[in-house]
Amino acid sequence: MAQKPSIPKGTRDFNAEEVAKRSYIMDTIKEQFKLFGFQPIETPSFENSETLMGKYGDEGDRLIFKILNSGEYLKKISDEDLNTKSESILTPKISEKALRYDLTVPFARYVVQHQNDIEFPFKRYQIQPVWRADRPQKGRFREFYQCDADVVGSKSLLQEVEFVQLYDAVFTALKLEGVTIKINNRKILSGIAEVIGAQDKLIDFTVALDKLDKIGEEKVKEEMRSKGISETGIAKLQPLFSLSGDFRNQISSLKSILSKSDIGIKGIAELEFINTAISNLGLKTAKLQLDVTLARGLNYYTGAIFEVSGPEGVKMGSIGGGGRYDDLTGIFGLKDMSGVGISFGLDRIYLVLEELNLFPEAIKATTKVIFISFGEQEAMVSLNAVTNLRENGLKAELYPDAVSSGKQMKKQMNYANKRNIPFVVLVGEEELKNKSFAIKNMASGEQKNVSLSELIEALS
Amino acid sequence: MAQKPSIPKGTRDFNAEEVAKRSYIMDTIKEQFKLFGFQPIETPSFENSETLMGKYGDEGDRLIFKILNSGEYLKKISDEDLNTKSESILTPKISEKALRYDLTVPFARYVVQHQNDIEFPFKRYQIQPVWRADRPQKGRFREFYQCDADVVGSKSLLQEVEFVQLYDAVFTALKLEGVTIKINNRKILSGIAEVIGAQDKLIDFTVALDKLDKIGEEKVKEEMRSKGISETGIAKLQPLFSLSGDFRNQISSLKSILSKSDIGIKGIAELEFINTAISNLGLKTAKLQLDVTLARGLNYYTGAIFEVSGPEGVKMGSIGGGGRYDDLTGIFGLKDMSGVGISFGLDRIYLVLEELNLFPEAIKATTKVIFISFGEQEAMVSLNAVTNLRENGLKAELYPDAVSSGKQMKKQMNYANKRNIPFVVLVGEEELKNKSFAIKNMASGEQKNVSLSELIEALS
Repeated sequence: MAQKPSIPKGTRDFNAEEVAKRSYIMDTIKEQFKLFGFQPIETPSFENSETLMGKYGDEGDRLIFKILNSGEYLKKISDEDLNTKSESILTPKISEKALRYDLTVPFARYVVQHQNDIEFPFKRYQIQPVWRADRPQKGRFREFYQCDADVVGSKSLLQEVEFVQLYDAVFTALKLEGVTIKINNRKILSGIAEVIGAQDKLIDFTVALDKLDKIGEEKVKEEMRSKGISETGIAKLQPLFSLSGDFRNQISSLKSILSKSDIGIKGIAELEFINTAISNLGLKTAKLQLDVTLARGLNYYTGAIFEVSGPEGVKMGSIGGGGRYDDLTGIFGLKDMSGVGISFGLDRIYLVLEELNLFPEAIKATTKVIFISFGEQEAMVSLNAVTNLRENGLKAELYPDAVSSGKQMKKQMNYANKRNIPFVVLVGEEELKNKSFAIKNMASGEQKNVSLSELIEALS
Repeated sequence: MAQKPSIPKGTRDFNAEEVAKRSYIMDTIKEQFKLFGFQPIETPSFENSETLMGKYGDEGDRLIFKILNSGEYLKKISDEDLNTKSESILTPKISEKALRYDLTVPFARYVVQHQNDIEFPFKRYQIQPVWRADRPQKGRFREFYQCDADVVGSKSLLQEVEFVQLYDAVFTALKLEGVTIKINNRKILSGIAEVIGAQDKLIDFTVALDKLDKIGEEKVKEEMRSKGISETGIAKLQPLFSLSGDFRNQISSLKSILSKSDIGIKGIAELEFINTAISNLGLKTAKLQLDVTLARGLNYYTGAIFEVSGPEGVKMGSIGGGGRYDDLTGIFGLKDMSGVGISFGLDRIYLVLEELNLFPEAIKATTKVIFISFGEQEAMVSLNAVTNLRENGLKAELYPDAVSSGKQMKKQMNYANKRNIPFVVLVGEEELKNKSFAIKNMASGEQKNVSLSELIEALS
């Protein structure tokens, strides 16, 4: 009956070193979230289907993992429905729950459900896994963590300023220096669409513009044409494709392009406010860059749009992103709640830290010392010492089987070696008699006999 | 289109205080796990259905949450199958994945799958949520965390000794003193069944015996009778129902009852070894107690059985449990791997700590100081100071909207109050001019003007 064990595609097992590295990233992010005044919440892994469905577009709906109702889920299905063999008819009848697809919709649901217990503005962070039935590929998984911080209930642009600082603080704490925080504003995009006479095509226009980095200027123009944006409009865009210089220079080019668009001018003012504040406050290791092509597929942003890319030379998509959405909770009946938030891409940050060798050595440290005993009595003395070491905060283990042959001895030393345990303590007849411990440094091979208190001191 | 938001029954949202308290328990457990040499692993939330199904009995199979296949899952179903309207036929065809039901089976799967990368004995811990389609009731949820530590690949009884120490260390660290670690041995139960001539009814017998605490001696006997255990057999059990005295006294009663059962004698020897070792090593705050009625529903234990109950006076079921199972990984094709492990009941431990008021005050500490500004310029000066405080490790916030009226001022002070933020810093025209900060202690009402460096010092 033995089965060849495997896990579902797009999911992962994590070993001790991987858990330690992931925890290091999450703990570093968490620490900065807390310093910035964000409070943790957690929501259930699955939500009622109606909470999630219809919030992410048709494609999103398809990618949501649905949970089969328990028990006799077919009982209430009519033969007529059954015979349609139609997923769109049957799924809602046999599945009432679904795994969360992101942390934003559950957060909105949380805010509305608990609005009477929440003080606004509400700064929350949430670090939990999400699930998507996406086609798995390199760096894209069906189960992955999101690390989100959002503020809901304040329209102040100081929030955007703080989020730029937060990105800078987290990546500085991770020693990942030189990341670029790209910023744009949905109002700028709306302004441009207005100026080129394509207000009704804002989504087509932003989707095309978003691809500038990937497919280049000509193909973006082609796509715009195919979506019905006029040649005159596209011509007016020309300065956009060659926007250059620093933040202030780009802003003044934008001012001339958008001089006739009220919403565009508002977007420029917002960007200027944020840039001025950040210039005054200073960033530690990141840089802030205006990127007018930044649109981020999602259509719910209404103000600032953020995206973070790794240091130059690192080939990796965005390692973070976010923005402002003016009506976060409206879908659940709570109007006029502006929200702004950012997200950290754990898996990609992991790969970047790995590539640049930025994980601290210390997080690999596991057990510090393992005891090897040569008999039952010796094992009890060892366990007593191990207990003592643990009470002194030292990670200590006892090899559970006593050694009775040279072969076993070799096996146990080998075990310590393979597990990178830096010290081995040997307890044999002599040590038992002298109440001493033979401690061996596995790196240097050096070995000496010490008392228990000397042992504690040597390992501390 | 507004929906009244809710979450699925048996699931929970956790607010900041609850997350902090739960993290405190999990972090305390994790710290001891590490001191004892356990390494973390994580496994996916869902497994292939064949990994889970059939491992927990029929009832378990029913309680496993199944995930509907993505896409056109009905396409391959024959009309014949569909028309059966039978869940047992259709479920395996429309669902190939399921949410994990516990951490033990995924751990066994992990060990077999990664056996070539693992050094045995393998000491692993795992703290992750599990899901069960149980009927929700007080203290029983459909999503809850398990905190497990297991050793696989060693038959040494020193492992059992260390697990008793681990329970003691964790509950001592949680300041939950006076817990009782109950221990039994499956071999004792087998021996008793043998002696009373009910070897073939071991499961019925242990299930009945397990209920002694809940339903009392007479009803247990009744249940045994109803399962076909003879009156002579039940009579021989009499000394069991009145086993009393300390560990050693109970052991000698058991020795006389089990003198003719080889397996019973082996079980007694194991218990004696563990008890002697623990007596020599000493426990810090827990006590070890022999409980011959301890069977713990699960049938896979083959040696030691553990269960922990809270301090006297606390009405709560078990707050931990575990045991040894000789063939943990056989079902996945890896024979002869003995495992022993324990689990901590996070939700119940939470309730006990709450009842006894044992959560440290410090974990409630959130933001230390919030700045309230009286204009845009003041806000920028405030944000600069806030940035400085954060760089000094102080949790600081800026109220995002500048104050322009007495009403707003009251609202913002109120906000600080409701969020239990102990200090408020006010920055107005005068402070701006003097480069000073008015710091107010919210508890005492005391207020004074200080420089930035004095502010950092005052809050550190």
